Amino acid sequence: MISTNEYFGGQVKSLGYTTTEGKSTIGVMEAGSYEFGTTTHETMTVIEGEMLVQLPESTDWETYQSGESYKIDANKSFKVKVTKQVSYLCQYK
Amino acid sequence: MISTNEYFGGQVKSLGYTTTEGKSTIGVMEAGSYEFGTTTHETMTVIEGEMLVQLPESTDWETYQSGESYKIDANKSFKVKVTKQVSYLCQYK
Repeated sequence: MISTNEYFGGQVKSLGYTTTEGKSTIGVMEAGSYEFGTTTHETMTVIEGEMLVQLPESTDWETYQSGESYKIDANKSFKVKVTKQVSYLCQYK
Repeated sequence: MISTNEYFGGQVKSLGYTTTEGKSTIGVMEAGSYEFGTTTHETMTVIEGEMLVQLPESTDWETYQSGESYKIDANKSFKVKVTKQVSYLCQYK
């Protein structure tokens, strides 16, 4: 089954699925500022667009563009700022 | 706005958005066989998983895996076979 998810009042939408590599979601964020929490280790990859990310325990903001990835440990929170719509792949691994 | 789309009774779901590069959708297909029609030129890229594709005017089926792309002209139809859930990026360009 393909799950449909909405967060932040529909500002972030995602589709969940499973491949031989494990569980993943693909999603889109509207322009805005978000704080996400993880329950498992996550690998986030920008598909199209650009996101500014503040990783857990970091004070710096780093820019990630199409094809670039970052990883977050389980049970952490991280912040994302987006100025235009951006699509991403989130792999739960 | 992030548009939410369902095709083939929910067997294919996608999210539509716009970047500086143009309009795109990201989506997921369940295992199955599909025929899609284009209204504009499309570039399809497999995000995760694998799809078997019969391009317009072709009798051959070719396999596309993560990161691989194919292009379809406007006003054509093409067929896709999927044995497990697969995610894709469709760029309308």
